[in-house]
Amino acid sequence: MSNTQVLFKSEPKGLPTPDNFDIVTVPMPGIEDGQFLLKNYFLSLDPYQRMLMGGGWTYAPRFLAPGDLMIGRVLGEVIETKNADFPVGTHVVGRLGWQTHVVSDGTDLDFIITPKQDVPLSAYLGACGSTGTTAWIGLKITGRAKAGETVLVSAAAGSVGGTVGQLAKAMDCKAIGIAGGPDKCKTVVEDFGFDACVDYKAPDLEAQIRAASPDGVDVYFDNVGGAVLDAAMANMNKFGRIPVCGVLSAYNEEGASYGVKNMHLFFDKSLTMEGFVLNVHKARWPEARAEIEDLIVADRLISRETVAQGIENAPSAFIGMLEGKNVGKQLVKLV
Amino acid sequence: MSNTQVLFKSEPKGLPTPDNFDIVTVPMPGIEDGQFLLKNYFLSLDPYQRMLMGGGWTYAPRFLAPGDLMIGRVLGEVIETKNADFPVGTHVVGRLGWQTHVVSDGTDLDFIITPKQDVPLSAYLGACGSTGTTAWIGLKITGRAKAGETVLVSAAAGSVGGTVGQLAKAMDCKAIGIAGGPDKCKTVVEDFGFDACVDYKAPDLEAQIRAASPDGVDVYFDNVGGAVLDAAMANMNKFGRIPVCGVLSAYNEEGASYGVKNMHLFFDKSLTMEGFVLNVHKARWPEARAEIEDLIVADRLISRETVAQGIENAPSAFIGMLEGKNVGKQLVKLV
Repeated sequence: MSNTQVLFKSEPKGLPTPDNFDIVTVPMPGIEDGQFLLKNYFLSLDPYQRMLMGGGWTYAPRFLAPGDLMIGRVLGEVIETKNADFPVGTHVVGRLGWQTHVVSDGTDLDFIITPKQDVPLSAYLGACGSTGTTAWIGLKITGRAKAGETVLVSAAAGSVGGTVGQLAKAMDCKAIGIAGGPDKCKTVVEDFGFDACVDYKAPDLEAQIRAASPDGVDVYFDNVGGAVLDAAMANMNKFGRIPVCGVLSAYNEEGASYGVKNMHLFFDKSLTMEGFVLNVHKARWPEARAEIEDLIVADRLISRETVAQGIENAPSAFIGMLEGKNVGKQLVKLV
Repeated sequence: MSNTQVLFKSEPKGLPTPDNFDIVTVPMPGIEDGQFLLKNYFLSLDPYQRMLMGGGWTYAPRFLAPGDLMIGRVLGEVIETKNADFPVGTHVVGRLGWQTHVVSDGTDLDFIITPKQDVPLSAYLGACGSTGTTAWIGLKITGRAKAGETVLVSAAAGSVGGTVGQLAKAMDCKAIGIAGGPDKCKTVVEDFGFDACVDYKAPDLEAQIRAASPDGVDVYFDNVGGAVLDAAMANMNKFGRIPVCGVLSAYNEEGASYGVKNMHLFFDKSLTMEGFVLNVHKARWPEARAEIEDLIVADRLISRETVAQGIENAPSAFIGMLEGKNVGKQLVKLV
């Protein structure tokens, strides 16, 4: 029994290349009492993993040392066990790294899955996993969206943004997306069912949002920060809420130096803005997952995926995702 | 019986002059059933009143028309009544305008006062009125300050900021002030009892805050926005809270065009920022007032005041306050 792993090799300058990774195959140790062996089916690729590699991609320092296993969330199944709580056949999700197999004692897992009929297994790393849970928590708990309100979402063609809009529609909100270019805007409206989508690459985003949402915005789900945040804030209603899920705009030089002008609106409009953390709301995850599973089964929520084949293709799939080549959630099918 | 009033006459350019006001004396009408006549003892002067006058002081449009009574909060006593709920001798506070007398039916009042022994009557327009209540709500409800945490406050020599720090000390928080110049910083530490005060007019505010608060800041009570907000945000701890009480920096040209750079910290540090409104928390006002009264009686909270004499001096006192000539709350003693 052997395990294939992707290791961090060296700090990239800008976009990574395959040279920044090492692929190694190592023997698996036997399991001890309390442990079990997982065979991993899917690996989730996400932008935060690039941040961990350093090299000026963000303001944060590098997190990984050369030779470290690349960090990432996987979905696996127990194939051998010495732990009665995790019998053979149990499916789990955890941030266990870019590797085909792993020994665990259960303490390093996010959750155990009972895959629901008609929900694809891969969805438990996307809409039924951290992606969908992030959308749900940000919209319903941090954003306190109520039926009849207007919800605006940036990066609306992405996996989190797309799910936010679909959840908003399912709770009878108006959903307005912000995305880059006509193709992505078309996806947001036609595939995800948003009421409208505006193009941040076209002129005067603030006026575009106003035209799409003449009654103003109650919840702005912010994935990007920067100039888009200014345009969104100008359209907020009094007592509007801004859950902050990410700051994609800060990951390039122009965006990182941008100063937000409309901060006085916090006072004028009694706005609330909050950077939320998924782990703080762990008690609500099962509720979020169950609701999203039901919407998928009822064909009321779609989760788009781009799936690369084989762990040896994980670095190239990761680079492609950072270049924007993926549609929806980027996964690697490991076996 | 006659009533002396200060009316809005014309839109100032920048700082108002006495010519922008009219002082008139008019006869008082008799009271009808359900009404009562108030004799006003004190008028509260506040920066928002300048905003209502227009003339490029802020981004908001002018609120007053020529001939309108100037808007402001007064403290008065019932001297004649045809309303059983408001017997002669009742003290009340309400936004009833810059005038010596007024007829009311009680629906336009903020609250009835039962002046507490050893609390000066004027305090009910300051520390025991909206000033203190604003400090209390922002610190305890919006800011969720807890004993042992560090509270940072801008405009700390002002009436709201000074009260925030004193309330923070009374609940066993560390209190750090931000003020302009060594004299104001001295007041904040020596008179108000803050642990430290940093000078935003001196170089490198961000490093000054860090030196005063090496363990970071849990609550930043923001009265100013702008560059001071950036410096405060850089020092916030994870899950820090930023209640927004005002944006003084937006009232001059340089400040109004400033862009806040550190917005990515909302995501990195899971910060919460909220523009709060006093009226939303009306149910908590009695609790806030009672707590502040007790602190005043126990000599644990001081409320500094600058008091002008006579309604005819209200315009010049107002102009002086806008020039920063007052220390603490600016009041006019009307009779």
